[in-house]
Amino acid sequence: MSAHEQFQVQAVSSSYWRVTFSNGEINLIDPDTIEQLAELITRMEQAPDLTAVVFRSANPDFFMAHWDMLADRSRVAGMKPAPSGLHPFADNLYRLAKVPAVTISEINGRARGAGSEFVLATDIRFAGPSAILGQFEVGVGSVPGGNPSGRLPRLLGRGRALEILLGADDFDADLAAAYGYVNRVLPQDELDRFVDAFARRIAGFDKTAVQETKALVDTVTEPPVEEFGTALATFFRTSGRPENAHRVKRLFEGGLQQPDGVELDLGRAVDLTS
Amino acid sequence: MSAHEQFQVQAVSSSYWRVTFSNGEINLIDPDTIEQLAELITRMEQAPDLTAVVFRSANPDFFMAHWDMLADRSRVAGMKPAPSGLHPFADNLYRLAKVPAVTISEINGRARGAGSEFVLATDIRFAGPSAILGQFEVGVGSVPGGNPSGRLPRLLGRGRALEILLGADDFDADLAAAYGYVNRVLPQDELDRFVDAFARRIAGFDKTAVQETKALVDTVTEPPVEEFGTALATFFRTSGRPENAHRVKRLFEGGLQQPDGVELDLGRAVDLTS
Amino acid sequence: MSAHEQFQVQAVSSSYWRVTFSNGEINLIDPDTIEQLAELITRMEQAPDLTAVVFRSANPDFFMAHWDMLADRSRVAGMKPAPSGLHPFADNLYRLAKVPAVTISEINGRARGAGSEFVLATDIRFAGPSAILGQFEVGVGSVPGGNPSGRLPRLLGRGRALEILLGADDFDADLAAAYGYVNRVLPQDELDRFVDAFARRIAGFDKTAVQETKALVDTVTEPPVEEFGTALATFFRTSGRPENAHRVKRLFEGGLQQPDGVELDLGRAVDLTS
Repeated sequence: MSAHEQFQVQAVSSSYWRVTFSNGEINLIDPDTIEQLAELITRMEQAPDLTAVVFRSANPDFFMAHWDMLADRSRVAGMKPAPSGLHPFADNLYRLAKVPAVTISEINGRARGAGSEFVLATDIRFAGPSAILGQFEVGVGSVPGGNPSGRLPRLLGRGRALEILLGADDFDADLAAAYGYVNRVLPQDELDRFVDAFARRIAGFDKTAVQETKALVDTVTEPPVEEFGTALATFFRTSGRPENAHRVKRLFEGGLQQPDGVELDLGRAVDLTS
Repeated sequence: MSAHEQFQVQAVSSSYWRVTFSNGEINLIDPDTIEQLAELITRMEQAPDLTAVVFRSANPDFFMAHWDMLADRSRVAGMKPAPSGLHPFADNLYRLAKVPAVTISEINGRARGAGSEFVLATDIRFAGPSAILGQFEVGVGSVPGGNPSGRLPRLLGRGRALEILLGADDFDADLAAAYGYVNRVLPQDELDRFVDAFARRIAGFDKTAVQETKALVDTVTEPPVEEFGTALATFFRTSGRPENAHRVKRLFEGGLQQPDGVELDLGRAVDLTS
Repeated sequence: MSAHEQFQVQAVSSSYWRVTFSNGEINLIDPDTIEQLAELITRMEQAPDLTAVVFRSANPDFFMAHWDMLADRSRVAGMKPAPSGLHPFADNLYRLAKVPAVTISEINGRARGAGSEFVLATDIRFAGPSAILGQFEVGVGSVPGGNPSGRLPRLLGRGRALEILLGADDFDADLAAAYGYVNRVLPQDELDRFVDAFARRIAGFDKTAVQETKALVDTVTEPPVEEFGTALATFFRTSGRPENAHRVKRLFEGGLQQPDGVELDLGRAVDLTS
């Protein structure tokens, strides 16, 4: 794959890939991300020996910031549906959870909005102390589109899911672990080694055992495909409404989508009452 | 509403209400509570801008003690079913979870039995260090009627749900948070300010985004209406059986439904073996 | 029952049994265990007053090690299906969860593989600090057969369930409690007294209230019977494949199924990369 890809794949072996995400100064998710992730998922589905995949970020402060709110809406709207019938953005999140290999997010820095939805679509989430997760969408007047409304309550219960989704605030690593938003927090100087050892371990196991065990869990845990379609349709219907333009405008005036400014404290920045 | 209402509604703004519950010395739940809560829920459903509601108690020691075991059983039995087909007691708990606004319980003191069922029907539970939650019904020979048998396992898993329901003991704030029975515990001197800020924050968000996000979560988390009917029918069938009269009698002799005595330590008081 | 039974039943009273498991040096689960457990479950189902059952181990280091990998496979394959249609191994785990009495595991030492599946089929798990739980099967190339792939995600969410199942590692008592794999950890010198008091407490309650409350929870939490059949069929299909013979051989060379050696640290021993 080319050096211009957002997802740099390091094939440590045929059974273990390390994938590093990089896109601009704060790792926004944009239409190119959708297309490249779809291709990557297909590669993962087709790699015969692939058993473990770790997703990392090249940026210690931003795992994946969130959806690029300046992206070309007509390009997104015009994307061809995936074979599932879903828009490719939703299809990625649906399909990623079902790849035969185990997928592990190694989270440093911020994973908000679509970045949170990405890590929720991976199987296992290990976080460093700097990790910050959140679904800020309600804070700018939108319903989250990547079905965290389906994944979060199944993962950690209705009460905490509603706090995360409706409060639209940031959750630091310790609170995220206490809630089950991430599996656990590791000390900064152990995280990389821990995740690598965990992935190598599984990559050394029999692929059939890994794949079939995961498939059994999928039948119990995976939301139905329609749920992803409904969530994304609700996002498209609720985002960009004029009555919330002042919220977005204020954030951009505060430096939204730039490495300094409101991105550092977005959970607080969306609160117009504080 | 009149000053004699059990639920005092303070409309901080059209989008944010603070509701304070008060009923006698220990905040029992009685037939009047059922009727007044049904009216309040209807008001909440119909308030066009209402986005966040906080439920509090006027009594620092009792959020809501439990169902009034001296209530007129024929009055309860004679209550007209709600449009859902449910008895109004069950309908309140079913319907409260579905109001368009987010509902938040700010829990100080005891919330047992129907009081626990009430907070479980709200969306989010924040507790002070004095909070005590429990479902003591099995300890007096009854099956809980407000469907905690449906809500607790979905919230925190079968193992801990069965411990709570069958052990019929008290859970202090820290254990309740460790189990996910409440979202989290705040220090006493921060709780009120924290909950108020959380509610104001959401009340400042776009109501459509809050309401539609919550509705998506509801489709994943809310028990079917029949489950509430079954739970209440099982309560009616199992409560008040003569073989358990000695349990209730002993509790009343120990000061049940009074501010001192067994209500302070009800989880222990139902244990006839200790 | 005879002194040669693996499950020693101490009927503390007609409502409270303490059952102590003992089978060889490390409490393996073998074909005799299957048959004797089936009989015990039937006895529990038929005991009219039985309300609480505690399962303990005679061996402080091994609650139940795991399935005996040297067991006669043809004897297991030839076992007559239970009335549910399930193989008796799966039927035990399905049926144990539905006995009218509450079942409580008091876990000291190791509960791995089928031992972990056993405690997951009991209602409540209390652990001492020495408890170690895990599903190591994927580490030897098999899909777990007792449906932890169904029970774990329902109990503690997809992310942590996949970490447990695919990582195939040991989970110590504290991490098991943080994940919800066990209800909680008690100090070693309090565990026995705590569990006994908890069981006596429930045994002193009205059996109808206990039984019917548990039945309501079962309708919400219990996996469908087919899921147990699928999991066991997947185990039979994946276990013992020649491509994983070297894994099992290495473990036996390291002392598998003996009290010292790899059984002490099996989670690490299955990792061929470390």
